[in-house]
Amino acid sequence: MTPPAADPASAGLDVGLLGPGWVGSPAASATGDSAYLAALLDAEAALTRAQAALGLAPAGAAEAVTRAADPARFDVGSLAERARGGGNPVIPLVADLTKAVGEEYGPYVHRGATSQDIMDTATMLVAVRTLDLVLADLDRTGEALARLAAEHRATAMPGRTLTQHAVPTTFGLKAAGWRSLVLDARDRITRVRDTLPVQLGGAAGTLAAFSAYGAEDATALVAAYARELGLREPLLPWHTLRTPVADLAGCLALTAGALGKIAVDVLVLARTETAELAEGSGGGSSAMPHKANPVRSTLIAAAARRAPQLAATLYGSLAAEDERPPGAWHAEWEPLRELLRLVGGAARDAVELTGGLRVNADAMRAHLHLAHGLIVSERLSAELAPVLGRARAKELLTELARRSYAEDRSLGELLAEQPELKGIELDELTDPARYTGAAAPLTDRALERR
Amino acid sequence: MTPPAADPASAGLDVGLLGPGWVGSPAASATGDSAYLAALLDAEAALTRAQAALGLAPAGAAEAVTRAADPARFDVGSLAERARGGGNPVIPLVADLTKAVGEEYGPYVHRGATSQDIMDTATMLVAVRTLDLVLADLDRTGEALARLAAEHRATAMPGRTLTQHAVPTTFGLKAAGWRSLVLDARDRITRVRDTLPVQLGGAAGTLAAFSAYGAEDATALVAAYARELGLREPLLPWHTLRTPVADLAGCLALTAGALGKIAVDVLVLARTETAELAEGSGGGSSAMPHKANPVRSTLIAAAARRAPQLAATLYGSLAAEDERPPGAWHAEWEPLRELLRLVGGAARDAVELTGGLRVNADAMRAHLHLAHGLIVSERLSAELAPVLGRARAKELLTELARRSYAEDRSLGELLAEQPELKGIELDELTDPARYTGAAAPLTDRALERR
Amino acid sequence: MTPPAADPASAGLDVGLLGPGWVGSPAASATGDSAYLAALLDAEAALTRAQAALGLAPAGAAEAVTRAADPARFDVGSLAERARGGGNPVIPLVADLTKAVGEEYGPYVHRGATSQDIMDTATMLVAVRTLDLVLADLDRTGEALARLAAEHRATAMPGRTLTQHAVPTTFGLKAAGWRSLVLDARDRITRVRDTLPVQLGGAAGTLAAFSAYGAEDATALVAAYARELGLREPLLPWHTLRTPVADLAGCLALTAGALGKIAVDVLVLARTETAELAEGSGGGSSAMPHKANPVRSTLIAAAARRAPQLAATLYGSLAAEDERPPGAWHAEWEPLRELLRLVGGAARDAVELTGGLRVNADAMRAHLHLAHGLIVSERLSAELAPVLGRARAKELLTELARRSYAEDRSLGELLAEQPELKGIELDELTDPARYTGAAAPLTDRALERR
Amino acid sequence: MTPPAADPASAGLDVGLLGPGWVGSPAASATGDSAYLAALLDAEAALTRAQAALGLAPAGAAEAVTRAADPARFDVGSLAERARGGGNPVIPLVADLTKAVGEEYGPYVHRGATSQDIMDTATMLVAVRTLDLVLADLDRTGEALARLAAEHRATAMPGRTLTQHAVPTTFGLKAAGWRSLVLDARDRITRVRDTLPVQLGGAAGTLAAFSAYGAEDATALVAAYARELGLREPLLPWHTLRTPVADLAGCLALTAGALGKIAVDVLVLARTETAELAEGSGGGSSAMPHKANPVRSTLIAAAARRAPQLAATLYGSLAAEDERPPGAWHAEWEPLRELLRLVGGAARDAVELTGGLRVNADAMRAHLHLAHGLIVSERLSAELAPVLGRARAKELLTELARRSYAEDRSLGELLAEQPELKGIELDELTDPARYTGAAAPLTDRALERR
Repeated sequence: MTPPAADPASAGLDVGLLGPGWVGSPAASATGDSAYLAALLDAEAALTRAQAALGLAPAGAAEAVTRAADPARFDVGSLAERARGGGNPVIPLVADLTKAVGEEYGPYVHRGATSQDIMDTATMLVAVRTLDLVLADLDRTGEALARLAAEHRATAMPGRTLTQHAVPTTFGLKAAGWRSLVLDARDRITRVRDTLPVQLGGAAGTLAAFSAYGAEDATALVAAYARELGLREPLLPWHTLRTPVADLAGCLALTAGALGKIAVDVLVLARTETAELAEGSGGGSSAMPHKANPVRSTLIAAAARRAPQLAATLYGSLAAEDERPPGAWHAEWEPLRELLRLVGGAARDAVELTGGLRVNADAMRAHLHLAHGLIVSERLSAELAPVLGRARAKELLTELARRSYAEDRSLGELLAEQPELKGIELDELTDPARYTGAAAPLTDRALERR
Repeated sequence: MTPPAADPASAGLDVGLLGPGWVGSPAASATGDSAYLAALLDAEAALTRAQAALGLAPAGAAEAVTRAADPARFDVGSLAERARGGGNPVIPLVADLTKAVGEEYGPYVHRGATSQDIMDTATMLVAVRTLDLVLADLDRTGEALARLAAEHRATAMPGRTLTQHAVPTTFGLKAAGWRSLVLDARDRITRVRDTLPVQLGGAAGTLAAFSAYGAEDATALVAAYARELGLREPLLPWHTLRTPVADLAGCLALTAGALGKIAVDVLVLARTETAELAEGSGGGSSAMPHKANPVRSTLIAAAARRAPQLAATLYGSLAAEDERPPGAWHAEWEPLRELLRLVGGAARDAVELTGGLRVNADAMRAHLHLAHGLIVSERLSAELAPVLGRARAKELLTELARRSYAEDRSLGELLAEQPELKGIELDELTDPARYTGAAAPLTDRALERR
Repeated sequence: MTPPAADPASAGLDVGLLGPGWVGSPAASATGDSAYLAALLDAEAALTRAQAALGLAPAGAAEAVTRAADPARFDVGSLAERARGGGNPVIPLVADLTKAVGEEYGPYVHRGATSQDIMDTATMLVAVRTLDLVLADLDRTGEALARLAAEHRATAMPGRTLTQHAVPTTFGLKAAGWRSLVLDARDRITRVRDTLPVQLGGAAGTLAAFSAYGAEDATALVAAYARELGLREPLLPWHTLRTPVADLAGCLALTAGALGKIAVDVLVLARTETAELAEGSGGGSSAMPHKANPVRSTLIAAAARRAPQLAATLYGSLAAEDERPPGAWHAEWEPLRELLRLVGGAARDAVELTGGLRVNADAMRAHLHLAHGLIVSERLSAELAPVLGRARAKELLTELARRSYAEDRSLGELLAEQPELKGIELDELTDPARYTGAAAPLTDRALERR
Repeated sequence: MTPPAADPASAGLDVGLLGPGWVGSPAASATGDSAYLAALLDAEAALTRAQAALGLAPAGAAEAVTRAADPARFDVGSLAERARGGGNPVIPLVADLTKAVGEEYGPYVHRGATSQDIMDTATMLVAVRTLDLVLADLDRTGEALARLAAEHRATAMPGRTLTQHAVPTTFGLKAAGWRSLVLDARDRITRVRDTLPVQLGGAAGTLAAFSAYGAEDATALVAAYARELGLREPLLPWHTLRTPVADLAGCLALTAGALGKIAVDVLVLARTETAELAEGSGGGSSAMPHKANPVRSTLIAAAARRAPQLAATLYGSLAAEDERPPGAWHAEWEPLRELLRLVGGAARDAVELTGGLRVNADAMRAHLHLAHGLIVSERLSAELAPVLGRARAKELLTELARRSYAEDRSLGELLAEQPELKGIELDELTDPARYTGAAAPLTDRALERR
């Protein structure tokens, strides 16, 4: 038998103990329960203000609701518990807010709206606020990568395919590639961010209650609501037309993967035997003083492993029946928050990772010779064929490749001994650092992208 | 522009605002950060006790560490933040615990262990504790379903396939089927629960440090450790042999789906037009007094939508390279907690749902006649063929089916007018309630399963 | 013991027996192994032509390779088997193609390229060709939905939330919403389609071999290659910068979900008790002549259940280490094909579904009265408050709602008996068909979107 | 514009061009459309035989149906196309089989059954047949791993955590760990395989039609059916109680991950810089003769990346409403086949991989010294503390670790120069190969498992 857990009292309260990848990050603040509470209250207050702006509620109501909608006055734990009854936190929130507003203006709280109007709008607010933080960190990451790419424009290193040395590449091209992924992520997030809409439809998405309360053109209220919150006005209420959530899923999954690519590259290049890269300040180990673990990369890689499945749940919720589905909507809340949070945390770690990355250019160059110089065999095949004839070139290279391993000598050495190659400038041909193709111009071109 | 979030200070602190499906449940307590902290401390204290039991540490050390390992003395928020450095919460916890134990016995804290030993062991403790809660709720759910099945053993209702009435079934058989899924889940959880092991391997799974600290047979320490915690002794350290986590993923995904099946059945049968089932206390709506939403089913269905993808992430972490992988392990922590929590919450809701389910047997019976009695056409085909000949039977039934819709009359009525059927006992043949096949004996048989 | 399978000889040959959702569709043709073979050959031929266009290969080589690259001359089964050796089908294809081209121009086949250049380019060709088919079917679907929305602009029906009647809506608004999702899908597919690039980088993405073979500016070759195939020129080789694949994943998952939303709505509204919608030609059942199964919706819904997880695998492959990853790339091939095929099949079924949908407007209107007229209680709350005072209005409505269920009478009837409501135009207020809010103008507005 | 695909005629026909991981494997044969057709026919024939065995059909019918159920007589492509109408292939199959049986016994084909009875039963047959192949390959893999573990019981190598050398381990322990995962997979597959049931319930799972056709106890027919096919008799029809499918998902996802763990270990250890392992016959590259790609590991790793998401789709289908769900069931077919096929292919590759694995024990031993001997610092901390005092020991080791990197000398050398360590047997303490802890006894113990 296992003993009982020691402290059940304060249970259900997560402070990020299992989330070193995001704890303490700006995105953690922007996605915590307090941030959601604040966004829910922002949404409620904006709704009353929008009604007042159109003359559907007194100005005093707008002021009173806005004043009362102060997160500090609400007990988020109590709201969470009371959310169980109706299945969402807006129901108890409206009760508490109405009470806080008082008798005169209380009736103007949440008037004509449905819980989903507020919940979805608050979620979009949280998303925009978090995406802005992510974008800032992607910008910093992109700048660090631009510096690395420029600095290492000519730093040759082995290109590796299916784990084996293939032909040379440069670290500059690798860093430029990382940056291009980061810019892809930035572009997709920006595009989605700028389309995120308010939600306003009332009980079944017809805006009927707003008309019952006197709106001549209820769609004007949606526009006013969007203006209050700086979100977009949707063409239709989207209670069960979940494109905005799916778009978020897509751009966040892509961002997690883009940062994940950087992380897995650092992880393989930081392996003890390779050590071409190291994190600026690796995590230590008390028992093993020689260890400097690539912790930032590890945590980013962990986020990249989780994001696709979280996105899958969100895409799955597109198939939402009726005017509000029993489950598909509820299944979005936590996964979307997790996704925002994980990506936010990974973006923070990417700033640290790329800003502090230590590049061992000597190791990179040295490794070019690990495969007995065969890393340039592709070039030799191409360039000796016109000289020796295709058949003879192939025969010779195959033989020398075999001998280079058998005799543990470099291909260059063996080639230099071949009488038939007299007069050919072998130094150039066998120098891996001079077989980097268009790596440098590709790097330059990629860095021109803004 | 959206206004900034109102309360960034207390951010990152989740109390379950987005989780009405699990908030306030026993599983929520059992899986919160406090519960993890307690389990981590249990794991550390048990390790020192196990060493003392084998003479590898003084008895005083075991007492001192056990005494110091009091969750109330630790700041879980600070631990969470400091976990960022090395990427896991055990590193700062060991520092704090060592300090709390004091100079004399401090060196016996965590001696010879690696962070993953403690983290994995704590996770197994949390899992066992949560699974025990889930099992209790599955038992209650199973009992409620047994009662429903027995009570409605003969309550005929339409069997529905691809959304359409097919042939009659009984609500008893449906409830018995639900119960059999719940028992399947119980059996799989029990099997997994009873195999969950401690983790102990030291830095790279060889137990070497324990030998360095004097253990003659370090594997004996693993056994002693397992005894201290009531978990199983593993055959090998499983830092990167993650069968226990995959087994948890499987039994939890199955349980979520089993409860999800009940939920989606209730949801379709509770639809306003059908109303054969209703939740005991549906969630209300202030604006729409007639609504009684099936909230428990909704939240269970939402959990069932999320669980498979969480399990997928855990299965994905099986492919964990080396002796500790950079990412695959870290990617397990939050999804496993989420899965335990969601299933725990769903099991709680299933108890309420099945215990309070209102069955409208009259509606079930009435709906048997919705399709003009054609719900028994399969039977008529079978039983009239020997009487009329197969060809004539088919011709007659096709014609009468057509007429029943065209004339809005029941098939039974039309059959009674056919001279060629004189003398046949049509009442029996056309009564849907008498065409339930082996539903009753199947129900009985299923209820015998314990 | 189970008997052995009867026909192992022709095994491994799939013709779509398990895929009724896509079998026989244009997308099936566009994504089969033959289509991939054709695209691989297109990619090889275009590469030689591009080299010839830049003077890097003789014109005769371009002609010879283009002529030889005739799918009919290749044995796709043999290629598949021989792909096992090196892990991809391009290696044996190049061998066969080189042989087919003959001795003189054989050396110009695949010159300077790596397998992934051809495989990725062919995949993009298959994607573009399939997306074009999907777009055409989305257009047809959108047109059918526009007709339905216009025709049913004023067809009132119950709005349903969490399975229960909420307030009235219209079928026109529902169809307009479906259409807006279809247009969202179309827009996202179009955007992605127009950015899909060729792949050309050589062994490690540096284009080095092309230089070794004489290209002064190897990037010009990429541009020429793109021109040959009508695909985009990428900024960088994207062997491990997988944005194009992730973008495909996103737009396809969204499309599957958009069509899935339509399907699940049809499925709930086609249920025997509701029968507001029916498929034009439901699938029959020989044993049960009354059944008309919503088969098209069923198959679309099945595709929508699978697409998110296929997309997740593709997003997961973004984290691809080195210059070619051992696994992440290979894990893309079949899921991307499946996703294209499923979405292509679902789009075909959506054309049939929406084109043939039978709308039972009478049933819709009749169902508005199922809840004793309480479907307008929201309106009554709003409009009686100014007349009776908020407190009295609420008291009265609560009492009458209770009585309507207890006495099985409609709310309208009971209201008409209330002396205090004398002189109020109750017919208007209690007519569900007149409480559809902005459904009609919203429908109009949504239909203006092109 | 992209040119049109060249050969649309033979489209939709997959021979495995995109599946080098499974093409040509026994599992490919066992899961192809032909194998499904054979299993569907086996299921139909067994049903008639079971009815004959109970006297519900003439013996001649059993013989006639069994004789007619010859896959060679059926056109699987035509069946696939006609499956579109009703949404599953059983409907056209029954039509063709009935015709093939002829007028006399045709009525006994499929009598009383529903499509799902046959489809699910056939799926279970395919599953059992494929799992048997997988089990055989897991056995072979386990034997190869046992040999490797025994042979390398004492082959020391660096233990690696978070990509960095931690403390030594042995290759024997690693291979023993791989084997234990393979045995875990074998045990779980075996357990599931032996419980897979026939499906028999009739239109809505009540077995009613069988009674209508004369069965006194229709459940006896289920038992007889199970006997005919060597599958288990289920307690209840499981049309929407999908435990068998979920159990398959779980054991297959675990197996894919278990093999994936081996693959990712080989992949990191085969990297050019490490080269401790190599595949027996790596895949070659024409342009780069030095490359020997770890192709088998690559393809296994690719399968491990896909399996979790396929399993997720299957777990998701547990939430299947009514007596046959519109979508959840249909969404199982292809993913389950894919999962069986991928795991079958990966098991075949695992046999080759483990049987041919080349172990470079010299490289392993050499790498133990890469970190200047600091790989034994954990041991030195433990063993010098009693000699020097904990504080002095720590101070000394920290200083020497720093110097070892700064001066590029080994820790052993530096320690030997310390006067305070005179008389201590440093050779033993600083030899990494002698700090492998319980690796050998753990290996022995693990190999005792059968």
